[in-house]
Amino acid sequence: MVEVKLLGAWGSPFSRRVEMALKLKGVEYEYLEEDLNNKSPLLLKYNPIHKKVPVLVHNGKPIAESLIIIEYIDEVWEGPSILPQDPYERAMARFWVKFLDEKCMPAMWKAFWSTGEEREKNKDEAIEHLKFLESEIKGKKFFGGDTIGLVDLAANFIAYWFRIISELVGVELITDDKFPNLSKWADEYINSSFVKENLPDKDKITAFFNARIRAPDETKYFPKA
Amino acid sequence: MVEVKLLGAWGSPFSRRVEMALKLKGVEYEYLEEDLNNKSPLLLKYNPIHKKVPVLVHNGKPIAESLIIIEYIDEVWEGPSILPQDPYERAMARFWVKFLDEKCMPAMWKAFWSTGEEREKNKDEAIEHLKFLESEIKGKKFFGGDTIGLVDLAANFIAYWFRIISELVGVELITDDKFPNLSKWADEYINSSFVKENLPDKDKITAFFNARIRAPDETKYFPKA
Repeated sequence: MVEVKLLGAWGSPFSRRVEMALKLKGVEYEYLEEDLNNKSPLLLKYNPIHKKVPVLVHNGKPIAESLIIIEYIDEVWEGPSILPQDPYERAMARFWVKFLDEKCMPAMWKAFWSTGEEREKNKDEAIEHLKFLESEIKGKKFFGGDTIGLVDLAANFIAYWFRIISELVGVELITDDKFPNLSKWADEYINSSFVKENLPDKDKITAFFNARIRAPDETKYFPKA
Repeated sequence: MVEVKLLGAWGSPFSRRVEMALKLKGVEYEYLEEDLNNKSPLLLKYNPIHKKVPVLVHNGKPIAESLIIIEYIDEVWEGPSILPQDPYERAMARFWVKFLDEKCMPAMWKAFWSTGEEREKNKDEAIEHLKFLESEIKGKKFFGGDTIGLVDLAANFIAYWFRIISELVGVELITDDKFPNLSKWADEYINSSFVKENLPDKDKITAFFNARIRAPDETKYFPKA
């Protein structure tokens, strides 16, 4: 009997990436919600190094790190391909997701949660990164082409979470006039029926980040950790 | 005609990872040395986002980021496998190389180049990370098992570069008594004939980091950038 469990957190874009991948492949799984303020013994056992969600447990064997989990899912289960078949295209997809997590996410995050001159500098940096994404998505429906792929799943934070924070903190980054293609992609992504039904509730996410604004030191982490 | 070019830097462990992968596969390539203080128009054209080595150019198409390049090489060329065949083992290899680059490398680097109390704190952090590696390599010749694989290539900085820096700055991290298995692996790795002939000259590396000690602000970068 195949047994698939996902340890996740409702508000984490990293967990949601993996959930989307499982759903794209039609994999049945048991979802276990983690309380990140009081991590379960199971999470600490399965991800002793990072102690973070998501963790996929397949027949008792754990895998951590959302992008690594998604590659595993794509390799193990039949169904629509999440990574491109062509090795060069696959390398490019890996390049963009690394860029998203290592450059875009931290730069945007810093722009949101800094103030004054520091914020302006961080905004400029974020915009420099986003220009590369804008140019990559131009002329395509999804980063994956006509269908949702690895880069779309990884960019989910831009399409949903960061739009909400952007409004809350009053930092405009991906506007229709400056990033028309990226904006269009974000609309397309969150409104595609498959994604729509798998996004966390907007009011709950808003409340989470509102709490962060009120008590920045106490809720300084992304839903991730 | 297949054309493979590698833009690299002699002292960069990231470049050396890719060179090792090409040699493991027996791929013929043209090597182009980059002067990182005066980057070539070719490097800026092929890696406009990061402007870093290594870049592999295969039939005119560029790929950046050492670990992404190695996966590409493994997928495109015949020869000994660099990543494991089994999807779970492959996921684990990806996990460890991410851990090496995102956790071990920065923590060790900070321990080397800080002082006083700050250094002690950084050393403790590095040691915490290294304990996981110590336990992973225990009982195995290489991270890849009996033969050199992705994780060994990625851990090259621990086996060679960081040992040299460790001596230079007088910060002991991977000692025989604290990390017997990791030490043994490092010896095994740098002394395997295949690796040995592909390592940069020790005196040149020593001179490079000696310069860093004398003028920390001017040569603050790893050979990487």
